[in-house]
Amino acid sequence: MIHMSPFEAIALKTVLGIALLGLAYALFLRRNILREDKGTPKMIEVWEAIKQGANAYLTRQLRTILPVIGLLTIALFFSVAVVPPSAEALERFPGSSPAQVKLIIGLGRAAAFILGALFSLMVGQFGMRIAVQANVRVAAASRKSYDKAMQIAYRAGTVTGMLTDGLGLFGGTIIFLIFQKAAPDALLGFGFGGTLLALFMRVGGGIFTKAADVGADLVGKVEASIPEDDPRNAAVIADLVGDNVGDCAGMAADIFESYEVTIVSGLILSLALVAATGQIKWLVFPLLVRGIGVFSSIIGTYLVRGKKGEPGDAMKAINKGFYSSAFICLVAFAVLAGFYMHEWRAFLSVAVGIGLAVAIDELTKYFTHTKYNPVRKIARSSRTGAATLILSGLSVGMESAVWTLLVIAATILSSIFIYWGQPITFVLYGVAMTGIGMLTLTGNNVAMDSFGPIVDNANGIGEMAGLEEEARERMADLDAVGNTTKAITKGVAIGSAVIAAVSLFGSFLTDVTKVQVQMGVAQAGHLLQTGIRISEPLVLVGLLIGGSIPWLFSSLTINAVSRAASLIVVEVRRQFKLPGVMEGKTKPDYGKVVGICTVASQKELVGLAAMAILIPLLVGLGLRVEALGGFLGGVILSGLLLAVFMANAGGAWDNAKKLIEDGNYGGRGSAQHKAAIVGDTVGDPLKDTAGPALNPLIKVINLVSVLAAPLLIQFRTITPGVIVFLVLALAAVVAAIWYSKRTVRPRRSG
Amino acid sequence: MIHMSPFEAIALKTVLGIALLGLAYALFLRRNILREDKGTPKMIEVWEAIKQGANAYLTRQLRTILPVIGLLTIALFFSVAVVPPSAEALERFPGSSPAQVKLIIGLGRAAAFILGALFSLMVGQFGMRIAVQANVRVAAASRKSYDKAMQIAYRAGTVTGMLTDGLGLFGGTIIFLIFQKAAPDALLGFGFGGTLLALFMRVGGGIFTKAADVGADLVGKVEASIPEDDPRNAAVIADLVGDNVGDCAGMAADIFESYEVTIVSGLILSLALVAATGQIKWLVFPLLVRGIGVFSSIIGTYLVRGKKGEPGDAMKAINKGFYSSAFICLVAFAVLAGFYMHEWRAFLSVAVGIGLAVAIDELTKYFTHTKYNPVRKIARSSRTGAATLILSGLSVGMESAVWTLLVIAATILSSIFIYWGQPITFVLYGVAMTGIGMLTLTGNNVAMDSFGPIVDNANGIGEMAGLEEEARERMADLDAVGNTTKAITKGVAIGSAVIAAVSLFGSFLTDVTKVQVQMGVAQAGHLLQTGIRISEPLVLVGLLIGGSIPWLFSSLTINAVSRAASLIVVEVRRQFKLPGVMEGKTKPDYGKVVGICTVASQKELVGLAAMAILIPLLVGLGLRVEALGGFLGGVILSGLLLAVFMANAGGAWDNAKKLIEDGNYGGRGSAQHKAAIVGDTVGDPLKDTAGPALNPLIKVINLVSVLAAPLLIQFRTITPGVIVFLVLALAAVVAAIWYSKRTVRPRRSG
Repeated sequence: MIHMSPFEAIALKTVLGIALLGLAYALFLRRNILREDKGTPKMIEVWEAIKQGANAYLTRQLRTILPVIGLLTIALFFSVAVVPPSAEALERFPGSSPAQVKLIIGLGRAAAFILGALFSLMVGQFGMRIAVQANVRVAAASRKSYDKAMQIAYRAGTVTGMLTDGLGLFGGTIIFLIFQKAAPDALLGFGFGGTLLALFMRVGGGIFTKAADVGADLVGKVEASIPEDDPRNAAVIADLVGDNVGDCAGMAADIFESYEVTIVSGLILSLALVAATGQIKWLVFPLLVRGIGVFSSIIGTYLVRGKKGEPGDAMKAINKGFYSSAFICLVAFAVLAGFYMHEWRAFLSVAVGIGLAVAIDELTKYFTHTKYNPVRKIARSSRTGAATLILSGLSVGMESAVWTLLVIAATILSSIFIYWGQPITFVLYGVAMTGIGMLTLTGNNVAMDSFGPIVDNANGIGEMAGLEEEARERMADLDAVGNTTKAITKGVAIGSAVIAAVSLFGSFLTDVTKVQVQMGVAQAGHLLQTGIRISEPLVLVGLLIGGSIPWLFSSLTINAVSRAASLIVVEVRRQFKLPGVMEGKTKPDYGKVVGICTVASQKELVGLAAMAILIPLLVGLGLRVEALGGFLGGVILSGLLLAVFMANAGGAWDNAKKLIEDGNYGGRGSAQHKAAIVGDTVGDPLKDTAGPALNPLIKVINLVSVLAAPLLIQFRTITPGVIVFLVLALAAVVAAIWYSKRTVRPRRSG
Repeated sequence: MIHMSPFEAIALKTVLGIALLGLAYALFLRRNILREDKGTPKMIEVWEAIKQGANAYLTRQLRTILPVIGLLTIALFFSVAVVPPSAEALERFPGSSPAQVKLIIGLGRAAAFILGALFSLMVGQFGMRIAVQANVRVAAASRKSYDKAMQIAYRAGTVTGMLTDGLGLFGGTIIFLIFQKAAPDALLGFGFGGTLLALFMRVGGGIFTKAADVGADLVGKVEASIPEDDPRNAAVIADLVGDNVGDCAGMAADIFESYEVTIVSGLILSLALVAATGQIKWLVFPLLVRGIGVFSSIIGTYLVRGKKGEPGDAMKAINKGFYSSAFICLVAFAVLAGFYMHEWRAFLSVAVGIGLAVAIDELTKYFTHTKYNPVRKIARSSRTGAATLILSGLSVGMESAVWTLLVIAATILSSIFIYWGQPITFVLYGVAMTGIGMLTLTGNNVAMDSFGPIVDNANGIGEMAGLEEEARERMADLDAVGNTTKAITKGVAIGSAVIAAVSLFGSFLTDVTKVQVQMGVAQAGHLLQTGIRISEPLVLVGLLIGGSIPWLFSSLTINAVSRAASLIVVEVRRQFKLPGVMEGKTKPDYGKVVGICTVASQKELVGLAAMAILIPLLVGLGLRVEALGGFLGGVILSGLLLAVFMANAGGAWDNAKKLIEDGNYGGRGSAQHKAAIVGDTVGDPLKDTAGPALNPLIKVINLVSVLAAPLLIQFRTITPGVIVFLVLALAAVVAAIWYSKRTVRPRRSG
C-alpha cells in the first residue's frame, strides 16, 4: 500500500469529486440548452436530416467497432497470462496467491480498457449529439439575439469540454485509488481503450467530413457554380453531418485521448519517481493540478457571454473565459508548489506546459492566419495560378513544422535543465508534467473547438432554411470566430500528442527496464543503462521503419478521402441531371450521399487499426524490444513533422482562400479565387483527416508497445510459435493495406 | 605502414591505371563528338544562346562558390591544430615529430578538400559543356540517322559518366596510397569537398532549371497557350539552359559525390576492419570492385548503338549496354571472392547493393511509370479537377517513400544477417560494401542520365530552328527514352545517398569512439559501447532537431523556385506586350530571363551551405556529441522519406500529364489536361530541386559531423569561447534563413 497523509487522502477524493462536479455541470448546461426554441418547421426539417445522418453514422460505426473492442478485451485479459505478476501487484493484494493476483490484474486491465473505450465513445457521441441539438437552436436564437446565439453554441461546446475533463480525470483517479502501486497495468488499458476509440472516431469522422466537403465543393462550387450549402446540392446534408462527426465527435475523442494519456503516462512516471524517492507528493501533484484545471474551467467557461453583439465580441468573450481560467490555475498551482510540494520544479514543468500551449498557438496563428505574411504570400501566389499557390502552401507547411518541432524540442530541453543533475526518471517526469500542464485547460479548449462546427452548422441551416439577413450576418460572424478557435485547438492537440508520446516513450523505457530486471533477462545492465541505441544497426532499422508508418497512414487516409469524394461527385452529378433538382423543385436524395460517406469512412477503420496494433508487435517480436524503441522514436519524429505540416499547410490554404474572398487579390469569382479553391480542397483532407489522425495513431502505437513489452521480452528467442505469429501478423498487415487501398462502392441504401 | 602482398600492391596500382583509362576513354569520346556536324546556321544561333547562358551561369556560380571554398580550406587546415595527431598518423610518418605530422595531416586534409571540390566541379562543368556541345550535334545528326543521333547523345553522356568514375576512383585510391593507415582524415576532406560542391551544383542547378521551367510553362503553355519551346517565349532559352545546369551539371556532381562518398566511407570502415582483423584484403576488395566497375562500364557503354532506329531501339540498346556491364562485374566479383578473398560475405554485400539498385529501380518505375496503377490513378483523378489530382499524387508519393524505405531497411538487415554473430564493425563494413556495389555501374548510370537532357535540348533546338518532321520525330522518341533513364537514375541516386549516409553514420561512430579513447575522455566505455541512445532526453532532442532539417531545406528551396518563377512570369508577360514579340517578328530578350534565373539560384547557395555546415556544429557543441549522433539519425530518416516522396510524387504527376497527352482521359487541351499541368508544375520543383538537393545535404551534414567530432569532444565543457561561437553560429543560421526567404530582384544586366 502507498502511504498518504490525511491531507493527501482527502485531496485525492476531492479530485474525484471535482471530476464528478464537471460532469454535473455538463448535465446542467445540457438541460438549459434543450429548453431553447428550435425555430421554424423548415429549419427543423433540415435539422432532422442532419440528425438522421449523424445517428446513422454513429450506429454504423458502433457496429464496426464493437467486434474489435471485444476481441481486444479478450486479448488484453489473456496478455497477462504469460507474464508473472509484478512485485507491486503482489504487494497491493497481499492476501491473494500469485495466480489470483494475475487474474485480478488481467480483469483490471480488460475492465480499464473497456472503461477507456467507453469514456472516449461517450465524449464523442454525447458531444456530437449535443452539438446537433444546439446547432438548430443557435440558428433560431440568432434571429433574436447575437448574445443568445453565441451563448448556446459556446455552452454546447462546454458540455463536451466538461465531459472530456470529467471522464478523463475520474477514470485516471479511480484506477489509481483502486490499484495504487499496481496501477500502471490498468492505466495502460484505460489509455489504450481511449486512444483506440479516438483513432476510430478521428479516422472515421475525418474521412466522412472531408469526403463530403471535398465532394460537395468539387461538384457544387467548382463545377455547377452554386453557392456553399445550396439545398440543390445532394451532398450538402452530408457536408453538415460531416462537420459534426469530424470536428465534434472526432476532435472531442481525440482531445479526450490526449487528456487521458497525459494522465496515464504522468501517473506511471510519477509512480517510478515515488518508488525512487519514497515521496508520494510527486504523484498527488498532477492529479491536484488537473482537479484545479477542471474547477477553473467550470468558472471560466461560465463567464463567457456574447454581450451586445458587435463583431469581435464573441472572440473577446471566449478569450476572457480562457484567461480567467488560466489565471485561477496559475495562482492555485503556485499555492500548491509553495505550501504542499515545498519546491518549484514540478510547478515549473507545468508552467512550461502552459507556455508550450501558448507558443504553439502563436506559431499556428502566424502560419495560418490571414493577418500574417505566410498566408498573404500564398494568396499572392494565386496570381500565377493554382500550381504556385500549392507550392507556396507546401513550403509554408514545411517551415511551420520545423518551428513547431523546435519549440517542442526546447520544451524537452527545459525539462533537462529544470531537473539538471537528477536521474533520467526526473527528466521524464518533467516532460510528463509539461503534458499535464499543457492540457489543464482542456475544458475551455474543447468548448472553443466544438463551438466551431456548431456555428458552422447553424449557418448552414440558416442558408438552407432561408433565414433573415440579420440572423445570417450574426451567424457569419460567429462562424468566422469558430474557424479561429478550431485552428487554435488543432495546434494544441498536435503539440500535446507529441508531449504525450514522449512521455509514453518514457513509460516504455521505465516499464521495459522493470520487466527485464524482474524476469532476470537483463544481466549486465537493464534498458535504461544500455538504452535505445540507434548506433546498433537493428535499432536503426527500427527507427527507419517507425519513421515510415505515419507516411503510410497519411497516404492511405488521403487516398480514402479522394476516392470517397469522387464517388460523391459522380452521385451528385447524377442527381443534378434528375428533372427538377437544378430548378429547386425536387429535393435531392441527401440520404444517399450520407450513406456513401458512412460506408467509405467505416471501411478504413479496421484495416488501419489492425496496422496500428500489429506493426509494433511485428517489430518488437521480429527485431526485439530495443528495435521497437527505435521504432517508437521514428514514429514520434515523422508523426510530429507530418501532422504539423499537413495541419498548417491546410489551414494556410483555407485562409488564403478566405483572404481572397474578402476582396483581396481579385476577390470572389476571379481566376485567383479558383486557384485558391484548389488549394483549399487539397488542404482539406490534409488538415482534417490525415493530419489529425496521426495524433491518436502515434499514441496507439506507443501504448501497444508499452503493453506488449513484457510479452516481447518473454519471447526474446525466435521459436516456431513466434515465427507463425510473425507470418500471420505480416499477412494481416499486408491484407489490411491492400484492403484500405481498394475502392468499395456502397451497397444499395437499406 | 600497411603490409600488402605483391599481388595487392600491383592490384591497387592497376586500379589507379583503370581510373586513368576511364578518363582517357572520356577524352577519346569527346574528341569524336566534337568532330560531328553542328547543322544549319539557325540551329547554331539557338545553340549559341544556350551556350552563352550556360557559361554565364557557370562563371557566376564559380564566383559565388570560390570564397566559400577558400574559407573552408583554411578552416579545415586549422581544424587539426587543436586535435593531437592520431597514433596511425605518427606511425605513417615515422621520421617526423608530432608537430610535423600535424602539419602534414592538416595540409593533406586541406589539399584533399580542394581535390574533392575540384573533381566535383570538373565533373559538373565538363559534363555540362560536353552536353551543350552534343545537343546541337544530336539535332543535326537526327536529320540523317536515328542511330547516329542516339549514339552522339549517349556517348556525350558517357563522357560525364567516365569522368565521374575515373576522378572518384582516382582520388580515393591515390589518397589511400599516400596516407595509408592515416587516410581517414584526408579522405574525409576529399568527401567533404565533393559533397559541398555537389550541394552547390544541385541547389543552384535545381533552382535555375525549375524556375525557368515553371516560369516558362505558367506564362507560355497555361496563360498564352503557346507550345513548349516556342521561340516567342522569352523564358525558352533559360529553360533549355536549365536542363543543362540542373540535369547535367547538378545530377553529375550529385552522383559523383555519392560515388566518392561511398568510397570514402567504405575505405574508413575497411581500415577499421583491417585494424581489427589484421587482414588488408577487406580494404583492397572495394577498390578492386570499383576498378572492375569502371572497366566493365567502358565495355558496356561502348556496346551501345542505336541500330536501325525503330521506336524502342534506343532503350533496348542502352539496357543491353547496362546488362553487359553488370554481367562482367558479377563474374569478376565472384572470381575475386573465390580466389582472392577466399570467402563470400563481402561478395554478398556487394551483390545486395546491386539488388538494391534493381529493387529501387523497379519501385520507382512502379510508382512513376504510365504503365502502372499509381500514375493511371492520378491521371484518372484529373476528371474531378486539379485538387484531386494533387491529392492522388501526394498519396502516391507518400506510399512510395514507405516502400523505398522498407527496401533500404531490408538492405541493412541483410548486412546484419550476412555478418551474423560478428562485431558491429563487420556490419557497418557490410553496409558500406552495399554502397560500393550499388554504385559500381555509375559510368553506365550517368551516361543514361545525361542522355536525357541532351536529347531534350536537341528536341528544343529542333523546335526553335524549325527542323524537318522526320528529324523531330526521331528526337521525340529519343526524348521519351531520356525521361525514363532520368527517372531511373534519380531513384538510384536517392537510394545510394541513404546507404552512403548510413555508412558515414558508421564512420562517425567509429571515429568518435577512436578519438574518445585516444583523448582519454571515455572512461567507463567508449561511444560504440554506450552508443547513441535516443532514450537519453538530450539525444532525443538531437533526433528531433535533425529530423526537421530536411523539411527546412525543402521549404526554402521550394520557396526559392516559386519566387524566381514568379519573377520570370512577370518578365515574360512584360516582353509579350512589346511590339512584334507575339507576332514572332521581334526576338525576345532571352538573356534577361537567364539573368533572373542565375541570380535567383546563386542567392540561396551561401545561406543553405552555411546552414548545412553550422547546424551540426551548433548541435554538437551545444548538446554534445551523442546528441549530434541522434541528430544525424533524424537527418537520415527525414531526408530519405522526404526525398523519395518528392521525387516520386513529382515523377508521377509528370507522367500522369504525359498519359493524358497521349490521348487518355480527355487528351491534350481538355480540362483534365489543364489539371494535369497543374500537377506537373507542382511536382517540378519537388522532384528536380528540393528532393535531389537532399542527397548532398544529408551527406554534407554527416561529413561535417565526422570531421568536427574530435573538436566537439575536445570542447566538451561549455567555456565562454564555446558560448561566443554558439551565439555567433546561431545568429549566422538565423540570418541565413532570413536571407534565403527574401526575394532579390536581379540588378540590371551588365
